[in-house]
Amino acid sequence: MSNPGDLSALAALIAEGSVDPAHVVAVIGKTEGNGGVNDFTCGYFTLALMTLLGRALGLAPEECARRIPCVLSGGTEGVLSPHYLVFCREPAGLAGDEGGVGDGKALAIGVAFSPVTPAQVVGRAGHVLMVAGAVRAAMADAGIDDPADVHFVQVKAPCVTTARAEAAVRAGHSVVTADANKSMAFARAAGAFGVALALGELDEAGLDERDLLSDFSIQSDRASISSGVEVDCNEVIVLGNSRAWSGDLRVAHRPMADALDLPAVRDVLADLGIAADPQVVGGDVGRIAGVLVKCEPDRRGLIRGNRHTMLDDTDINAQRHVRGALGGLVAGVMGDTRIFVSGGAEHQGPDGGGVITVIARGKGELA
Amino acid sequence: MSNPGDLSALAALIAEGSVDPAHVVAVIGKTEGNGGVNDFTCGYFTLALMTLLGRALGLAPEECARRIPCVLSGGTEGVLSPHYLVFCREPAGLAGDEGGVGDGKALAIGVAFSPVTPAQVVGRAGHVLMVAGAVRAAMADAGIDDPADVHFVQVKAPCVTTARAEAAVRAGHSVVTADANKSMAFARAAGAFGVALALGELDEAGLDERDLLSDFSIQSDRASISSGVEVDCNEVIVLGNSRAWSGDLRVAHRPMADALDLPAVRDVLADLGIAADPQVVGGDVGRIAGVLVKCEPDRRGLIRGNRHTMLDDTDINAQRHVRGALGGLVAGVMGDTRIFVSGGAEHQGPDGGGVITVIARGKGELA
Amino acid sequence: MSNPGDLSALAALIAEGSVDPAHVVAVIGKTEGNGGVNDFTCGYFTLALMTLLGRALGLAPEECARRIPCVLSGGTEGVLSPHYLVFCREPAGLAGDEGGVGDGKALAIGVAFSPVTPAQVVGRAGHVLMVAGAVRAAMADAGIDDPADVHFVQVKAPCVTTARAEAAVRAGHSVVTADANKSMAFARAAGAFGVALALGELDEAGLDERDLLSDFSIQSDRASISSGVEVDCNEVIVLGNSRAWSGDLRVAHRPMADALDLPAVRDVLADLGIAADPQVVGGDVGRIAGVLVKCEPDRRGLIRGNRHTMLDDTDINAQRHVRGALGGLVAGVMGDTRIFVSGGAEHQGPDGGGVITVIARGKGELA
Amino acid sequence: MSNPGDLSALAALIAEGSVDPAHVVAVIGKTEGNGGVNDFTCGYFTLALMTLLGRALGLAPEECARRIPCVLSGGTEGVLSPHYLVFCREPAGLAGDEGGVGDGKALAIGVAFSPVTPAQVVGRAGHVLMVAGAVRAAMADAGIDDPADVHFVQVKAPCVTTARAEAAVRAGHSVVTADANKSMAFARAAGAFGVALALGELDEAGLDERDLLSDFSIQSDRASISSGVEVDCNEVIVLGNSRAWSGDLRVAHRPMADALDLPAVRDVLADLGIAADPQVVGGDVGRIAGVLVKCEPDRRGLIRGNRHTMLDDTDINAQRHVRGALGGLVAGVMGDTRIFVSGGAEHQGPDGGGVITVIARGKGELA
Repeated sequence: MSNPGDLSALAALIAEGSVDPAHVVAVIGKTEGNGGVNDFTCGYFTLALMTLLGRALGLAPEECARRIPCVLSGGTEGVLSPHYLVFCREPAGLAGDEGGVGDGKALAIGVAFSPVTPAQVVGRAGHVLMVAGAVRAAMADAGIDDPADVHFVQVKAPCVTTARAEAAVRAGHSVVTADANKSMAFARAAGAFGVALALGELDEAGLDERDLLSDFSIQSDRASISSGVEVDCNEVIVLGNSRAWSGDLRVAHRPMADALDLPAVRDVLADLGIAADPQVVGGDVGRIAGVLVKCEPDRRGLIRGNRHTMLDDTDINAQRHVRGALGGLVAGVMGDTRIFVSGGAEHQGPDGGGVITVIARGKGELA
Repeated sequence: MSNPGDLSALAALIAEGSVDPAHVVAVIGKTEGNGGVNDFTCGYFTLALMTLLGRALGLAPEECARRIPCVLSGGTEGVLSPHYLVFCREPAGLAGDEGGVGDGKALAIGVAFSPVTPAQVVGRAGHVLMVAGAVRAAMADAGIDDPADVHFVQVKAPCVTTARAEAAVRAGHSVVTADANKSMAFARAAGAFGVALALGELDEAGLDERDLLSDFSIQSDRASISSGVEVDCNEVIVLGNSRAWSGDLRVAHRPMADALDLPAVRDVLADLGIAADPQVVGGDVGRIAGVLVKCEPDRRGLIRGNRHTMLDDTDINAQRHVRGALGGLVAGVMGDTRIFVSGGAEHQGPDGGGVITVIARGKGELA
Repeated sequence: MSNPGDLSALAALIAEGSVDPAHVVAVIGKTEGNGGVNDFTCGYFTLALMTLLGRALGLAPEECARRIPCVLSGGTEGVLSPHYLVFCREPAGLAGDEGGVGDGKALAIGVAFSPVTPAQVVGRAGHVLMVAGAVRAAMADAGIDDPADVHFVQVKAPCVTTARAEAAVRAGHSVVTADANKSMAFARAAGAFGVALALGELDEAGLDERDLLSDFSIQSDRASISSGVEVDCNEVIVLGNSRAWSGDLRVAHRPMADALDLPAVRDVLADLGIAADPQVVGGDVGRIAGVLVKCEPDRRGLIRGNRHTMLDDTDINAQRHVRGALGGLVAGVMGDTRIFVSGGAEHQGPDGGGVITVIARGKGELA
Repeated sequence: MSNPGDLSALAALIAEGSVDPAHVVAVIGKTEGNGGVNDFTCGYFTLALMTLLGRALGLAPEECARRIPCVLSGGTEGVLSPHYLVFCREPAGLAGDEGGVGDGKALAIGVAFSPVTPAQVVGRAGHVLMVAGAVRAAMADAGIDDPADVHFVQVKAPCVTTARAEAAVRAGHSVVTADANKSMAFARAAGAFGVALALGELDEAGLDERDLLSDFSIQSDRASISSGVEVDCNEVIVLGNSRAWSGDLRVAHRPMADALDLPAVRDVLADLGIAADPQVVGGDVGRIAGVLVKCEPDRRGLIRGNRHTMLDDTDINAQRHVRGALGGLVAGVMGDTRIFVSGGAEHQGPDGGGVITVIARGKGELA
């Protein structure tokens, strides 16, 4: 990608027949904006992507956007390189007769869309349940029964805008907050709770919406949630390993205890049979197909006892700071700068830390 | 440090007798500014430091500043924590009768000041020679004969300001550039060449000032150069290991090939007998007394073949980007966020990479 | 000022006898930081100022800081020039026998400090009453009886920090908010209400603390409030016109309806007998001794019906945006870039607008 | 515009028949990016615009972009509002039988494209001549003979990229600079010289390419130049007044002596018969159809003798600073925030100042 509107690499793969546009089920990418409210690189990329796929599929760009979830994170701070992952599902993929790697499991992908989430439901228990339902549907779509086989759940959740809030209030409802930014945090929290519920990390009986953004001991190690004004329902992408799928790709994940959790990076690679001593080398670099990190500046202002300055910086947004630091750390282990790092990790992995997920081609034994 | 003017930690150490202000020979620190031309946190820290030391020593702050080199780098991007290292030299330190660690060598510190460098000399061969002379003087001050025992040379070099350039031109001289920012880069280059000359990495016969900022194969793995308007001569701090010194501190360094050179971080620790597998743990964290990194965004726009966006970002300065990334990487290995990371690494370590230097307390065997 | 620590201009005035340090009663200035939580240029300036005045007065810097209010606003966006105003009160000033300008009134200055405001009182009715009391004391100090003679009230109000909030909660109290940034907004609101109360713009019977940051129709056209962690009581500076004072200085103010209120700038100058058609020219430029503007980005996102982007910019803080715009507008009328422009104008002038205050030397007729 | 990809307003005008897409000859707009190298809002807007117009005209977006010049300036600092001007030319426009305003002249628009400008020509005398030729062609296209009737010439000029520079060098040529940013400044300078040549402000005999970015006394009060990697030839839009055109629009311009030149703003309005005393009021606000400002931070660091901090700010780009300040000033006079303000004004208006151009509907007498 030479810029956020540059889809020439995908266009070339389609032109040469390597990618069949009808098989594209989801796209996850990093663009070089600021990752904030005024980051328009995501919209630019999406317009260019959906125009490209729409032309190939004979669909209007808007129709494409309703069928193919596209999750983007703005901000390639530090060494990070703009890039995108295109998830394709070939028909043979569900036949399962070729077998996967080692234990016979291979990367499985499922997507689902929840019903529309009204403004008065955003960031509340009803939102949690809607996300949980969509996660279960995406698991079914992926052919995964056992929640233990799920390693990554990306949710793009709607938020409350000023206009939506006013409409809801006029209709006699209340909203959790009328502030767009705060509602995004609540929506991310509801998304994480929904994932935890669907994966059995949280018991439905124990669900209390007052815990959202409050009890940070409740979390899912496999949730990666974003929230934005551009969606009105919850878009869900589930990645896991399944015997019903074939191919040589596998996925693994590890929680990160804090922003310095280098051992978690090493361990998630070990789960996939890849050594990092301390860095991935040689042919193993090429085995790594995707690295997805979710993280956050510690809200208590300290990392292992020492003050960090991310939260008090008026010049650089805190999420930009933390993406740059985690990007540097993870890229150093991978020996590659094409790392997806996203902030806003409330209830996604340990408080003050986050989650790392890696997709890799299989080779030899798995841990 | 709760802010750049907060010297309460040093004041407390002086008050309790742990630090004798008369033994302070140099200070190196990171403050939470932007590291650019309008970073005033360095001036603020220096005023507060010199006021504190001046009171303790019965000197005016200005007089203190002329005796004690204080090298600051603004910018604690990402996980980095504001902090400072106070280098003290106790009289017994030169006696050498206690011996050092392992091979009997211990951390040795020397400082020196070159003569005033006129504007017409800055960034030219004469500047290189002046720095080389001051490095040799600082080595002598440290009691180090063998350049191989030198592991870190910090130089704070003067630059050309508009006013100085005009005065030089009026006096019939020419300057390498009248642009303050460019002259800082030339001054850093001259500083690095001077260090390389003094340490035998560059032959005086081979010195050609046209190579400054041009032939990046010429470099010193032990140079760490800053340049600023606040000095008119070259201030030099040399750190090395010497049998003439006692104490349990040692210093080691490694060049970093690029911004992802995680093996270099592991290796410099190994040089000091500290394991990082992948992270320093337990008591070893406390053995580390200082970590100094010099780095730079790759000027060719690529890191291991993939595009980075640091050089084209109008919102965040490129040096802030790279400090955040390297800070994240090195802090992850150390398990500690108090890392000195400084940009502007022209000719200081490999092109596109830099240098890492670690000071640690000895224990057990050295590599 | 060549930098935030450069007090050489004041030092020269003291050295040549133009300023007697014993007559300095207050300092108001703009420094070139970002005006945010991590703006350390104010602390740097204050340390340098109090060191200078302390030396001259034989006082410790800390003691000076307790006697002389120093109000700084960080951020010289756009054309704004770093500068500071030193308010001196000469003994003859209170004699009043020389008379003022036109109606016999001349600039009067008063200062006062409220009692310490505990964390549980910040941003509440008690805070409002404390500020009102200090404003009345400062009016008395200035020799002003009639609130109509007051044209500018600067208040520096304490806020709630995490530490103070925890201490208050441990002692059984509640705080209005534990978030430092929000508490600053509440403190500014309480300050504005306090000024309105003291000046009769708000009736004590009508005081309802729930109106703070809520009913923006309540405001004072003469309030200029800042809040910071560095004070624990409310520091107040009152400027007005009084027959009890002599000299050729006068002060006037005008509310600004919005960020485009150019007529208000013209009118406040007219109040002082200075024409701007459209710009102040010739000798009149030199008559202007100080220009103080308080403003804010319209929180509804529109200016005269068109969208502004200040509130949604992740790269540049909204207050930096609005200071730059108002600075450009007001400097254009004055023909001078030394304008004090400060954000955070809740309840200070009309909602979405602010206040402009000018101090000028008298000449000819007043409006 | 709710975001840089929002063309709904133009789509609505086309749908209702107010705008015939076949009549669109040029678009000039401001988007809410940072205005720097990594401002992708311009590309996003252009893609959305050309997609819209292409659909309406039955053309591919790329083909549309080659026919209709689209000049965008990123950065809506301060009070500025994102907006765009669509220039339409109706067939009757050239008939001229209806007459214009006052003296019978009405707004005339012409566009032209120069031949491709090779990298080795960019920023040199050949570039100047190419621009001059295109300006003359655009004047002819507009039906303007007398250069005195030209009030605004927008040029979008190609620059040297690293790739283009390398290709040129391989082919045996030299380039003025291989640095993309510097080449943009040279290209803007060449564009301004070309306009000055075509309008008779500069004599061809007096053309010396060494004066580019060097002799700032050479300038055109009617040039507005941008440079970018997305063009390979010079795109020119000329605005003037002509008896050959009808309609009630007129254009006028004034040089701005510096960033505080409020009188110039008043005067350009007076040229169009609009009073600003000090602000445009009532129906006159609606008469203003477009305001275009070109400006620059004074490169000597001073405005009317006082230091500004724009050039030394590592946090906010200098062009963002100056756009915010000029935007505040001009919007204050207009009573409207939809002002096009663009930086990079080398040789465009007086050094340290710039140019203001206004398009307005006629009414009553003209000055």
